Amino acid sequence: MKQIITPNVITKVAFNSSDPHEVRQAARAGILDGPTTTLAAGHVQANIVILPADFASDFLLFCQRNPKPCPLIAMSDVGSPRLLKLGEDLDLRTDLPRYRVFRDGKMVEDRADISELWQDNFVGFALGCSLSFESSLGETGLSQAYLEQGRVVPTYVTNIDCEPGGCFSGKLVVSMRQFSAQDAIRAIQVTSRFPNVHGAPIHIGDPSTIGINDLAVPYFGTAPAMKNDQLPLFWACGVTPQIALEKAQPPISITHTPAHMLVTDLRNASLSSF
Amino acid sequence: MKQIITPNVITKVAFNSSDPHEVRQAARAGILDGPTTTLAAGHVQANIVILPADFASDFLLFCQRNPKPCPLIAMSDVGSPRLLKLGEDLDLRTDLPRYRVFRDGKMVEDRADISELWQDNFVGFALGCSLSFESSLGETGLSQAYLEQGRVVPTYVTNIDCEPGGCFSGKLVVSMRQFSAQDAIRAIQVTSRFPNVHGAPIHIGDPSTIGINDLAVPYFGTAPAMKNDQLPLFWACGVTPQIALEKAQPPISITHTPAHMLVTDLRNASLSSF
Repeated sequence: MKQIITPNVITKVAFNSSDPHEVRQAARAGILDGPTTTLAAGHVQANIVILPADFASDFLLFCQRNPKPCPLIAMSDVGSPRLLKLGEDLDLRTDLPRYRVFRDGKMVEDRADISELWQDNFVGFALGCSLSFESSLGETGLSQAYLEQGRVVPTYVTNIDCEPGGCFSGKLVVSMRQFSAQDAIRAIQVTSRFPNVHGAPIHIGDPSTIGINDLAVPYFGTAPAMKNDQLPLFWACGVTPQIALEKAQPPISITHTPAHMLVTDLRNASLSSF
Repeated sequence: MKQIITPNVITKVAFNSSDPHEVRQAARAGILDGPTTTLAAGHVQANIVILPADFASDFLLFCQRNPKPCPLIAMSDVGSPRLLKLGEDLDLRTDLPRYRVFRDGKMVEDRADISELWQDNFVGFALGCSLSFESSLGETGLSQAYLEQGRVVPTYVTNIDCEPGGCFSGKLVVSMRQFSAQDAIRAIQVTSRFPNVHGAPIHIGDPSTIGINDLAVPYFGTAPAMKNDQLPLFWACGVTPQIALEKAQPPISITHTPAHMLVTDLRNASLSSF
């Protein structure tokens, strides 16, 4: 098991933080224990869900039926911690900076390594994450206040039911970003190009239409400071499967810790549909 | 000069109204004297502007600088009524059902044929028209109340200045279509694929942001019946060059009569950027 120096802080030990392979190796060696948000720019970062095989086919069905919140980009063989498509050397047991362990749907632990917990019947899922389109939004010049302010994008639980898949079900969770009308149109265009990382927004304008009563009270993240001329845009969010997971209550399941993602060799641009 | 049977009414004389060549021939023969909106489905219909050569370069500049309201798809040689790219047999003097003649920027006549008025120094411009993306919106299942109700899409003069080009200048005119939030996102996606026919909307939401004080009072077209859960979307509109034309006051200029367009052999799908 790798040794942790300072939990939740990126240490000063040198590694090339722009190289996805080196980022994973740093996580594996316990050098990197913090958020991955700013690391390996231009490369896909993935939400991770690890489940026993007898829950995997239900979860796969849930992803297939809810591609906007659960855009599946890779799935491991039963018992294998490898996702060759995302990195030849990649090991799901060690290469994320931090993990969350759930037992019977309840989070019991946040840890830096899951080698000791790995089971022969585990299946790993990698789901696209909005960081991939965030970088395209940034390149397009669409400023995002929450990033500039070093904050976390606010997320909300909507009144929209996901389509159930086996034992997995639950409400759709969305992330919110606010833009002027002109930038909102541009943001819809840019994110439409990335169907594998949540794609276009699912809603624009009045939050109450999708069951959000107060933008100032997010489920997770920082409350936004909306300007008068701004419109809220809502994207399906990778927190959705986590809520479905808690509801399905598998005896054990493991996810990444929020913002502590799997950094892959895939380029964000490779996910663009055109 | 062709003979008109019933002005502004499509007569019962048989021609294949789904064939753009036959539609033009019917206009040329005086059989067709009405709106082209429902004719030659799937084919590009164009706004037409005809100007003396000494105004043409300024107008070309105006189009180049304002591609959203003035998406130029073809321009004739000086003195030629042909636009081979849009139809081999096409003749700008006879092939539109109706024309409007302007002298010194003022409309003086609405007529079915301009053969007698044609000058050796005339240049013809064909500009993309929103009918091309309307058909894509329809195929996508985005109902448009004003079409269903047999109405004309409402247009408004905004407070946005076009970039002047020589003697041409003026405010941007927009057309408005209202959608639910989800359909609005889809409409932005669909119309973004058609940059040569006005493309994506230029505004969504609060009309006052672009200087429209009352949606119930359009510049042209029918006042919309907005529902509570709908957002107004505003697209740059082909009426913009007409206003610029009235301001530039060329001694003579000729346009199509609204809704009486040039029907071309180009397929709408050929204008899609992807």
